[in-house]
Order: sequence, then C-alpha cells, then structure tokens
Amino acid sequence: MTQPSLSRRRLLLGGGATLAGGGLAGAAGLSLTPEATVPQEEAKGAQNVPFHGPHQAGIATEAQSHARFLALDLKKGADVEHVRRLLRLLTDDAAKLTAGQMPLASNDPEIVSLPSRLTVTFGFGPGLFDAIGRSADCPEVIRDLPVFATDRLEQRWSGGDVLLQVCSDDPVPLSYAVRRLVRDARDLATVRWMQTGFNPARGSEPAATTPRNLMGQRDGTANPASGTTEFDDTVWAEGPDWLKGGSMLVFRRIRMDVDTWDDLGRPAKEMATARRLSDGSPVTGGSEQDDPDTAAVDGQGLPVVAAEAHVVRATALTPAERMLRRGFSYDDGPDASGKPDCGLLFAAFQSDAAKSFVPVQQRLAESDAMNIWITHVGSAAFVIPPGCAEGAFIGEALVGSA
Amino acid sequence: MTQPSLSRRRLLLGGGATLAGGGLAGAAGLSLTPEATVPQEEAKGAQNVPFHGPHQAGIATEAQSHARFLALDLKKGADVEHVRRLLRLLTDDAAKLTAGQMPLASNDPEIVSLPSRLTVTFGFGPGLFDAIGRSADCPEVIRDLPVFATDRLEQRWSGGDVLLQVCSDDPVPLSYAVRRLVRDARDLATVRWMQTGFNPARGSEPAATTPRNLMGQRDGTANPASGTTEFDDTVWAEGPDWLKGGSMLVFRRIRMDVDTWDDLGRPAKEMATARRLSDGSPVTGGSEQDDPDTAAVDGQGLPVVAAEAHVVRATALTPAERMLRRGFSYDDGPDASGKPDCGLLFAAFQSDAAKSFVPVQQRLAESDAMNIWITHVGSAAFVIPPGCAEGAFIGEALVGSA
Repeated sequence: MTQPSLSRRRLLLGGGATLAGGGLAGAAGLSLTPEATVPQEEAKGAQNVPFHGPHQAGIATEAQSHARFLALDLKKGADVEHVRRLLRLLTDDAAKLTAGQMPLASNDPEIVSLPSRLTVTFGFGPGLFDAIGRSADCPEVIRDLPVFATDRLEQRWSGGDVLLQVCSDDPVPLSYAVRRLVRDARDLATVRWMQTGFNPARGSEPAATTPRNLMGQRDGTANPASGTTEFDDTVWAEGPDWLKGGSMLVFRRIRMDVDTWDDLGRPAKEMATARRLSDGSPVTGGSEQDDPDTAAVDGQGLPVVAAEAHVVRATALTPAERMLRRGFSYDDGPDASGKPDCGLLFAAFQSDAAKSFVPVQQRLAESDAMNIWITHVGSAAFVIPPGCAEGAFIGEALVGSA
Repeated sequence: MTQPSLSRRRLLLGGGATLAGGGLAGAAGLSLTPEATVPQEEAKGAQNVPFHGPHQAGIATEAQSHARFLALDLKKGADVEHVRRLLRLLTDDAAKLTAGQMPLASNDPEIVSLPSRLTVTFGFGPGLFDAIGRSADCPEVIRDLPVFATDRLEQRWSGGDVLLQVCSDDPVPLSYAVRRLVRDARDLATVRWMQTGFNPARGSEPAATTPRNLMGQRDGTANPASGTTEFDDTVWAEGPDWLKGGSMLVFRRIRMDVDTWDDLGRPAKEMATARRLSDGSPVTGGSEQDDPDTAAVDGQGLPVVAAEAHVVRATALTPAERMLRRGFSYDDGPDASGKPDCGLLFAAFQSDAAKSFVPVQQRLAESDAMNIWITHVGSAAFVIPPGCAEGAFIGEALVGSA
C-alpha cells in the first residue's frame, strides 16, 4: 500500500471529516515525481524502527533523544465508530511516518525521509473504554491510580483518553509527526496536554551508557535488558487477547528543585540515592549494575547506606515489582523571577501497574531521601495495547474491526 | 584560573547577593576529587568551541542542533556597577561552561563535562545602554527597529535589555547552562522571555547541508561561508572600539501557518520561494548555491520565476544588504483545538542592521509570496559586543572595567 488513494483517506475519515483544500493537496501529492525523494542511506536520520509486530514500537526501542507525550480527549459524544475511525487513521499515519513515508494527503517527502528512529506508541485511558461501551474492561489501576501522600498533582499535566508517545533522535521529524497526528485527530479529539522531553544527544556519550537526568544522575540503571525473559516478564501484559502483548504505562511529571539540589554537597547528593554521581555505582563500591551493600558500615560502625536512600526504597522487592523506566528530562524554562521549571517525565512500562508502580511508589511516598528535591506534579496511566500487523490498526482487538 | 576561590565569587556578586547554602556548596565543590571527572575524549559531547577571542562564539560557529534565546531585563535602578557585576559573572560562567568546566559554586563535573559545542553569546538592548548612562551610544536601529506593515508583534516575544543566545548539540548541557546563567543573573535581572529552537540533529543528514525548516525548505542557502572576506564584511561591525569585532543581531519569531502550507501543492510551494524543496536549487535549474534565472520564460512565454517569489525579494541587492542567518525552528505544540504553534526563530547577524535587515525586510513586507503563510509575532534587536580575552569580560570596553 505505497500509493494509497485519496478515496481511502475519505473512507478512513468517514466521509464527513473536513479537509481544507484537500482536493488540491491530494492531486498535487499524487502527481509527485519520484526524484523528489532524497536518498540518505548513509545518514543516521535514515534509521527507522519497524512499526508493525506483536508489540508496539517505542517500548523495547532504546530511548531516543527526543520525545513528545500527547494526551487527547475524545470529543463529547464520541462512540465506538468514532474511536475506530480515529485509531485507524492514526495507525496509518504512524506506520507511514515511522517508515519515512508520507502520510495520506501529504506531499512533503523530504521532511519525512529521515525519521531518525521515529516511533509512535498508543495508550488508552479510561475515557476510551467508556466511549466504546467497554468500561468494565479498563483495569482498575488505570482508571483510579492511587493518589500518594507526596503527590501535588495539577490537572493540566494529568489524565487523558488517548496517549500518543512520539519519539525520535531528531526534533524535526518529531515535530512534523506530531503535527500530522494532531491534525488527523482533531476532528474527533482535543489536545489535553503535551509534554516535551529530551535525553542526551545520540553520540554525545559512548554507546551503552544510562542517560543522565538534570540532577546529573544516571537514571534507569535497574532496567531489564531488551531481549531477555526478564524484560518480557516485566513489560508485556498477560490477560485477554486485546491486551496480550501490550503493557501499561504510568506517566508522571516530576518537578525537580534544582536550586537547592545544585547547592548541595557531593556527599549529601550521593547519600540521597546511595549511588555515585560519577558512574552510577553504589556508594559501597562495585559497578553501575551492582546493588548497594545495605549491610556495610563505616569506621564508626554506622551504616554507609541510609535506610531512606532512593535506590534502597525503589528497588523491586519481587519480580512483579519490576518496571521498564523510559523517561526523559523536561525543561520548560525559568519564570520571570528566574525560578527553573524542569525535571523528569517519568515513563514506566510494566505488565501490571497494580503490582509494580503502585507498591513501589507507595514505598517512596512513605520514605525516600529524594522527596526533599522532587515533587510529582502530573500523573496519567494508560493501557498500552499490543502492536498490530500490516493492514490492521492499533486497538483493533479491543475496539472491533467493523 | 582553573581553581577560583569562593571569595572571588563573593567579590563578583558584590558581597550582597544571596547564595542559598553557598558555604556548604562551595566547600563541597572545592573538595571534589579529580577522579569524579569523566573523560570522554572520543565522544562527540566532548567537542567544545573556544570562548575567548576577538569575536564572540556562536556566530561564525556552525549552527548547533539546539538553542535557547533568553532576554533579560535589568531590575529597576540598575546602574553601571550592577551591569558590570552581571557581565563579569555571566562571562565567567560562560567561559567555564563552554569549556566543559564547572561554573563557580558548582560541584557537578559530569553535567558540564560534555558541552557538545556549547556557546553563549551576549547581546545588549537599549535598556543596557540607558542603565550605564551611555544612551547615545545605542545605535538607532537597535533602539527603534522599524515596525513593518506585515508585523503582528506580541510584547511577550519582543524586546529585552540583555540577550543570551545559548546553543549546543545536546539539550542536557544546554539546559544546565541556561539554569546556571539565569540563576547568577536573577539578583540583578528578570527573565523577559525565553524561546527554544532546534535544527535537524547533528549527523542526521550528511555533513555540509543547509538545515531544513518546518516547511521543509532549506533555510540559509545564501549565507556567506565562514572564514571568507565576504563573511567578515557581512557580519562584523565597524565603529568605535567597544563595537569593533562585534555585530548586530535581529531576532524575529516568525510563526508559520503550517495547516494551509501542508495542503498546498508542490508547484505552488516551490513557486512561493523560486527554489525546489528537494535540494534548494532554483526552479530554473542549477544547484543550491545558484540564483534563480528571473529572465527565464516557459513554453507560453510566461516568467518561470514570479516577481514576488521569496528568494527574488530577499536576495541582497548590494553587499551591504547581506546577513548571516543563523535561525532555529520552534514548536511550542498545539493548543487544545489542535492548532499548531510553530515556525522559525529567525536570527540574523550583520555589521549594520540599518543597511541590511531593515531594507530587506521592508522589501519583503511590501511583497513576498511567503507572506500568506508566515507572520512575524516577535521582534528584538541587540548590539553584539566583540569577544574578550581571558580575564576580561564581555562588554568591558563599553561598560568600563572599574
């Protein structure tokens, strides 16, 4: 399906959707000459991540340098037909854009030709289950993620019926993909929030390092390695067919008080996590992948690792508590007084959030040395449906194909 | 001056500035062990751009992938002493951060060790000249840049007493540099606006291509090549000692109506600029660096290049009209209805804006086919002082050293 006709787009849009200047644009798009496509096989930008498969892309994919998380709200009165139309259209857009191909009704081959590992990952909030008349199928933990004692949540960063996680190593194709997806969604949905994040630029550090966050910490050390049984058990959901091969995403906006953090001494910073800032190794010695030795004592017989150190509190106590953390830093810039607004877009994929994020965050809310400098100001939870085969659409097993 | 003492910082701050937890932080910073520094010579992140020299960095420097432009306003009552203190402190921060070294009172070697070609470029608006009692020295074009017929300027994106242009190939050291600079400025200045921009990721395309903007156009084709006499004549200012080797920056926030642009046919898009989207070459043939042949006619004897084509209107008619364009795309994301807010942070360096930006923009405001899809919504103009030697500070020849 490399030359989709305009009539297919009309079909997808259900015939009633608006398309400003669509006739002209479609005609021009189809008359495009092949030589307008720029071949850049040797450039990094040409790298792409397969869209189709049993799992969605953007989860096991090594985290890209840039991300935009968008939460959409379905318009009032949206029903299963509308949701199906939306998902069919956005799936088609995502499949093409991530492959470096033009979405329907586009005639801009250059701006899509270098996707730089672009991925689009879909998530479903409770409102989508309600709209399709399957409220009871929404897992309880997604519908009502507990509010924790340390939460200071703001509505403007929370909730949403549909999540789009769009990632790329290049902000240009990322920007374009978001603009096309939002445009194709806006007849049926509004934008609830968008949050923009980043990791260190690709190639800035030698390969295979854990990215640093804005506190200078290596963040995500405990992640399971892609391709292992541990990874599969941690990330992919069991359950009914419509969920099997999917996952759950807990997304939190965690603001950092970098003013007080920056003034802190090195020993205090390292005691807060029990890991060294230099290389992420435990303060009790070893390498990044080792756990701190909580039994170690210093010359005076005092414990080297504090009981409230972040790593001690956050470590999974059982296999079921494990998560795949795939976060990004955010920095929305200072206010007029110069006070920073930055932190972490925490994104954790897990087979069942009730068994992993909830107990771990409960423990951290009770006691975590890092709580002095971090505040959760946004929260959203989504079912991540499985991937789809070519010709199908994301969520088809839940929403139904006709 | 690789081990500055805390007392020097106190001196720079004039003794009266606040420094939360400063004693502790300073002590911890100075006791830092050398092995905490991560050597990454082979990584791209280690690349740095020299700060000191006759010209400021960030102008002849090949445009980085990421930029933040910050406009500061001096606090009420700021005088020459305050301005001197501010510039001395920010110069010291900028010199260290761009070299991959910690700024004063920091103890985070990791987050600064990979500057990824970080540059900090200072600009002076009319308010700075007024504060130091040298109002008459502010060039007229900087004080009162004309308002053009097509301008739709918003105060929130316009003006400013001091500009900081901070650029890097990596958003992490960029974020950190901005946070340190703003923190050290905030006793004496407020943040008027911050605008964040990006170019295609480094390495996404093969080297030596002109970056594409969010309309898919190669943007900046006519730029003079660094190291040539043309470049020097275009960019560096003549005039009194305090300005010689400096420049002038006109900074415009140009919003793009990408909704209507995306729907447009290829021929209409290419006619608007007279350049091909594929490779930036003229629609009349040739390669990117060639000018369109305005005399060319088609089979019916009609001109191939429209008189109002952007390139025709924008091309410098005299050497004095040339500019160095060093812009970045911006994308602040859609509003709730899905309407995009994206475009170009136009940044043009030139020896005298009265002779280059003003006449060229006058021409474009009168007639430019692109005016259908672009709107100037922000505007600011700054004197760019020359660079400085080690031990001196940016603007010293204007502000005075004592």
